[in-house]
Amino acid sequence: MSAPIVHGGGITAAAVAFGGRPEDWLDLSTGINPCPVALPDIPATAWHRLPDRHLIDEARRAARDYYGSGEILPLPVPGTQSVIQLLPRLVEAGRLVAVTDNRVAVVSPTYGEYARAFASAGFGVDAVDDIAAIGAGHRLAVVVNPNNPDGLIWPAETLIALHHRIKAAGGFLVVDEAFGDTDPALSLASRAPQLSNLVIFRSFGKFFGLAGLRLGFAIARSDILARFEDWLGPWAVSGPALSIAASLLRSDVSPIRGRINERCAGLHGVLTGAGLQLSGGTALFTLVADARAGDIYTHLCRHHILVRKFDYAPEWLRFGLPPDPAADRRLGEALQRFER
Amino acid sequence: MSAPIVHGGGITAAAVAFGGRPEDWLDLSTGINPCPVALPDIPATAWHRLPDRHLIDEARRAARDYYGSGEILPLPVPGTQSVIQLLPRLVEAGRLVAVTDNRVAVVSPTYGEYARAFASAGFGVDAVDDIAAIGAGHRLAVVVNPNNPDGLIWPAETLIALHHRIKAAGGFLVVDEAFGDTDPALSLASRAPQLSNLVIFRSFGKFFGLAGLRLGFAIARSDILARFEDWLGPWAVSGPALSIAASLLRSDVSPIRGRINERCAGLHGVLTGAGLQLSGGTALFTLVADARAGDIYTHLCRHHILVRKFDYAPEWLRFGLPPDPAADRRLGEALQRFER
Repeated sequence: MSAPIVHGGGITAAAVAFGGRPEDWLDLSTGINPCPVALPDIPATAWHRLPDRHLIDEARRAARDYYGSGEILPLPVPGTQSVIQLLPRLVEAGRLVAVTDNRVAVVSPTYGEYARAFASAGFGVDAVDDIAAIGAGHRLAVVVNPNNPDGLIWPAETLIALHHRIKAAGGFLVVDEAFGDTDPALSLASRAPQLSNLVIFRSFGKFFGLAGLRLGFAIARSDILARFEDWLGPWAVSGPALSIAASLLRSDVSPIRGRINERCAGLHGVLTGAGLQLSGGTALFTLVADARAGDIYTHLCRHHILVRKFDYAPEWLRFGLPPDPAADRRLGEALQRFER
Repeated sequence: MSAPIVHGGGITAAAVAFGGRPEDWLDLSTGINPCPVALPDIPATAWHRLPDRHLIDEARRAARDYYGSGEILPLPVPGTQSVIQLLPRLVEAGRLVAVTDNRVAVVSPTYGEYARAFASAGFGVDAVDDIAAIGAGHRLAVVVNPNNPDGLIWPAETLIALHHRIKAAGGFLVVDEAFGDTDPALSLASRAPQLSNLVIFRSFGKFFGLAGLRLGFAIARSDILARFEDWLGPWAVSGPALSIAASLLRSDVSPIRGRINERCAGLHGVLTGAGLQLSGGTALFTLVADARAGDIYTHLCRHHILVRKFDYAPEWLRFGLPPDPAADRRLGEALQRFER
């Protein structure tokens, strides 16, 4: 077992350390839309019965139309994490012969659970900072696009060229588009039907503000999706999650996108107003680089505001979206009190 | 990949074959309480946020008190199926040396997903009909108690003796108590803190009538639970499921038990009134043995009533609970029209 990674959302622990009731803290430590959409009606049968084929198919068709994956019906999974855990098995199952080249590449720095899952399964993990460093010896490569936490974007053609290179050696390319909903033009989903050994992960909860649901989708050709489905077993996703997805993925999401962009502009105003240097991000979070990031983090904790810091990059802080202008002001006032 | 098993709940497929709208069918093909309890209030944060440590701990403490597992805090899992899929890995991780005895035993006939998960992972599976046939060569043994579909009950002392025998050879004992809520005295949960290499699975959805939630609990000593937690990764269970469990596991369940027993008595009355021979079951389902079981199954389908048949035992039919006396009458009338 490897040590668990500390992710965002640890308000309970922060409140123990710095005081205050957890519900009074301002949680900016995640990349989740802080303005959850209204829940659609959930039929009683979705709670009561095992998720029926009909309900699953409805969610898959809605996901296909929303993600634009053509002939591929995306596979609903109980959070991207559940399929990250299966990636080592995918690589092992894809081996034609026993080989010793059990190395994978993760374009880094990025979401830490990829490296953890592979290391835990005995793989060697190369954290590369450029796609060009991924070679034929890698059985699988992971690119988070746009990347978390720096928001770096890889153009589709670069990723497709990488796919051809890695596939020629029998490897897999995983593209994690967890933060892709605010800029759908970046997605590789429409190309997936033509690209074998490509796996795309999408997150449902971040954009819709429903991270508690535990729902994501995997987009890949049918041989790969059939394996994931087999390994996850029947009824991997809850009935309420499938029902909500089938409704919301067919709804008009432009007001959600508009609200996120508005909140992002509010956050940028606060951060630049406080003299901080923005160094990346997506519409759902902003990365700040500052030599005194650690002190700012502690200062904000004393004001019961939690942001995300990074062991591997002590000069970085990631700010999630404040839920409303009052929260913008609260953050702004706390930052103004930080003494340089 | 092994072929998927056909489980109960396939009303959509049955309606395609025999007509009628799925919602008009009487589904007796599952072992789920057909009278779901009222949903407790779910706080908005349970939907919105990633499941927080506080929410998880609340559910675990409620489960400990409900299952009576002493110092063990049961681990919430997204349905028992999710941990069945991990059992091959548990056996592999438990190996001290490379060995060739990769056989497991499943007391059979029983729930089919155990054999499928192990066969799919390359294990040899011995379907044994008696606990006495489980030997030191088995790396793991599975006992469903009470058993599905025949309701067979193994006394606690028999299971504990089996545990000692199998543990002495470094193996694991898995006791699946999915249908244990109606007779808590049968559970091994209170003994689990003293028994290493014992794993108990509990189902939340069957008894409470909330199978769509996808929630179960694993009860075992901390070394085993830590492995499951690591392999499932963070946030494996949805926020709403944890919140509902924390409420309902602390509620007075005697009305639920009373209602299930009342429905069971209604079903027994209908079946014996139709001249059928009851040959086992639990409070949540009843097994019937009849030479013409296949014909009865088809006859009931024509009346848009779905029960469970078994490829391996063509003389068996399993009847789930009808939701109310009107459904009892509907089943009774259909059975009366069956011509012997």
